[in-house]
Amino acid sequence: MNTSAHAEFDVLASRSVDLHSADELRARLESAKKENRPLRVKYGADPSAPDIHLGHVVGLNKLREFQDLGHTVVFIIGDFTGMIGDPSGKSQTRKALSREQVQANAKTYQEQVFKILDPARTETRFNSEWLSPMSFEDVIRLSAHVTVAQMLARDDFGKRYAAQQPISLVEFLYPLVQAYDSVMVRADVELGGTDQLFNLLLGRELQKVFGQPPQIAMTLPLLEGLDGVNKMSKSLGNYIGVNEPPKEIFGKVMSVSDELMWRYFSLVLCRPDPEIAAMRRRVQDGSLHPRAVKDELARAVVARFHGAEAGRAASEEFARVFSQDQVPADIPTVRLEAADRPDGRMNIVALLVKAGLASSNSEARRLVQQGAVRVGDAKISDPKAAVDVPAGAVIRCGKRGFARVG
Amino acid sequence: MNTSAHAEFDVLASRSVDLHSADELRARLESAKKENRPLRVKYGADPSAPDIHLGHVVGLNKLREFQDLGHTVVFIIGDFTGMIGDPSGKSQTRKALSREQVQANAKTYQEQVFKILDPARTETRFNSEWLSPMSFEDVIRLSAHVTVAQMLARDDFGKRYAAQQPISLVEFLYPLVQAYDSVMVRADVELGGTDQLFNLLLGRELQKVFGQPPQIAMTLPLLEGLDGVNKMSKSLGNYIGVNEPPKEIFGKVMSVSDELMWRYFSLVLCRPDPEIAAMRRRVQDGSLHPRAVKDELARAVVARFHGAEAGRAASEEFARVFSQDQVPADIPTVRLEAADRPDGRMNIVALLVKAGLASSNSEARRLVQQGAVRVGDAKISDPKAAVDVPAGAVIRCGKRGFARVG
Repeated sequence: MNTSAHAEFDVLASRSVDLHSADELRARLESAKKENRPLRVKYGADPSAPDIHLGHVVGLNKLREFQDLGHTVVFIIGDFTGMIGDPSGKSQTRKALSREQVQANAKTYQEQVFKILDPARTETRFNSEWLSPMSFEDVIRLSAHVTVAQMLARDDFGKRYAAQQPISLVEFLYPLVQAYDSVMVRADVELGGTDQLFNLLLGRELQKVFGQPPQIAMTLPLLEGLDGVNKMSKSLGNYIGVNEPPKEIFGKVMSVSDELMWRYFSLVLCRPDPEIAAMRRRVQDGSLHPRAVKDELARAVVARFHGAEAGRAASEEFARVFSQDQVPADIPTVRLEAADRPDGRMNIVALLVKAGLASSNSEARRLVQQGAVRVGDAKISDPKAAVDVPAGAVIRCGKRGFARVG
Repeated sequence: MNTSAHAEFDVLASRSVDLHSADELRARLESAKKENRPLRVKYGADPSAPDIHLGHVVGLNKLREFQDLGHTVVFIIGDFTGMIGDPSGKSQTRKALSREQVQANAKTYQEQVFKILDPARTETRFNSEWLSPMSFEDVIRLSAHVTVAQMLARDDFGKRYAAQQPISLVEFLYPLVQAYDSVMVRADVELGGTDQLFNLLLGRELQKVFGQPPQIAMTLPLLEGLDGVNKMSKSLGNYIGVNEPPKEIFGKVMSVSDELMWRYFSLVLCRPDPEIAAMRRRVQDGSLHPRAVKDELARAVVARFHGAEAGRAASEEFARVFSQDQVPADIPTVRLEAADRPDGRMNIVALLVKAGLASSNSEARRLVQQGAVRVGDAKISDPKAAVDVPAGAVIRCGKRGFARVG
């Protein structure tokens, strides 16, 4: 392995959790270089959730690194299973989509994805291309290659079987579909979150059966959402979407905890570990204020999806609106649902109660009428007022009551 | 339930092992009678083994009883899976068949089956009719209706999983195929051996999913083969085929143990239990010789498939050839494979060694040359002789050496 191949490997392996195997990736990079061909790096997308958020960006960043080194991303839209949904009817999140919905979602998905990926080095494939023509006979031949024990070795299946929770037979077929996709696109590498490891490894096994060199399976960390605990996901509402307006993205990043922000620097912005370590030391020794660091993070995230100018503007706007007065560093966050604030606005009385700053509507009304309430830098004195509550907005109530919209 | 329906139920439930459920069968018989429609009684055949033997006759007898009461037998040729075989390549007995082989086997099968069944009340279906057009999507929708736990509840799967023996995923699809056949032919009843119970019950479950009244599952005993221990099967070579010549059938039945012959009276000849009990008592009190009873059994079995005249002739021939001299009642049986006796003949030296009557070829040669050897009533003195060795033939060697061809 020459020096440039070493450097290439180091970039590609960075931030990964599982890598099956590092030696195989090294060898594959070298043989690709010799044969003067790009590696085919597979990544699967679920067409039922077209909104891309920072959780997806973790993987997309890695794909972009492959592309910057000349490799091809094979972007698979799982329309075949998307159009079937969950035939057992148990999953609410897996409703069957029409062909039109899938196409529309795929388009939305691609528009967002190309904020990060290089379209010239991306091959988009719909897996219905090879799965729809398959017959029952084909399925039987395919399923002969995997065993029940192999499937039950998957962590979540094993746990559910042990706990006597039903596993539909169809759930055994879906990983097989994903694995077969790897065969059909002749993937050299497949990328996924750590929760995808089993499926990626099954792809390796199936490729061996079909006489292909097994793909290298690489997983990346699952990014925690705004709550700092759960995996970022649309259904939990703890996400930052790449298509959100700059002000929203900025405010949401500012609501992230001081601890979690370091992971965002690494996984969303791909800042090198030594740089992050240096910043951490400066925060620890007091020479850098965490708020300044987070402002830099938020500005850079906005800049990533809306350009540098938008990042600067969002930062200034945020400072102007929310940071003129002294606000304690750690104030509680109030999570608002889209339903709470149609058009981004919410009644001040309802807001105070929701934020826990008043124990009842009547108390909230009295506080507003007393002139004790401010949202951002605006004093609110009309209990009927509908106020603008973007993410990051700080609500004040008297001298000690604070909350930040999350 | 009126008297005739009671009688009908009693005939149909006789000799069955499992019946899910007796009440449902009673109700279904009554409603069929009211609607003036025949019940549809499903029976599946494996097109890879076209030779029908007495083990199959057990089920065919029951089907005939249904037909004699006016019901329809739906005879399913499993050509879809027959043409796929065992794609995991682990089973020698499940080789993939060509369409031509399946058709040829099905024809052979039917010719034999109609020795028992009434063609006018038999509907023959090839399951490729509905399975071949099925797509992967159809399979996914179908497999959503069964759970992994349900499959592992099948006795043999559960044991293999516990013993860490591999179960291919395709083996989970085959019972689903059989169950779906029940849906497609709208079976009222499905019949099978006791080893089929799980599959029959799965058919019930799937019919419920498809809004059909669940079929009644009825199992019949597995008939022991000539060895008296294992299930009669072609692969074990312990079978009596319905297409074998009268002399072969007769001789093989005569080689069955005195204990097993009672089961043959019941399961092959459908003799009523009281009649069998009466015969047993007469054998026990010595007023009837077991050899005479077995002769009656053998004659009746031959008569069943070749006519009464053939039965009588086989009995007389057997008596003439094998019973002129005193032969001890319990002599060892030597099992010959088809390969041992091409054209039904075998070299006398090889036969003696195989039968354990000589410890080496040279000893066998010496015995033959000494004039000590007879097969049937013929003395064999040429060590190069190829002798006729039908089932039942008695080999004698000196005063004490005896063996019977099984």
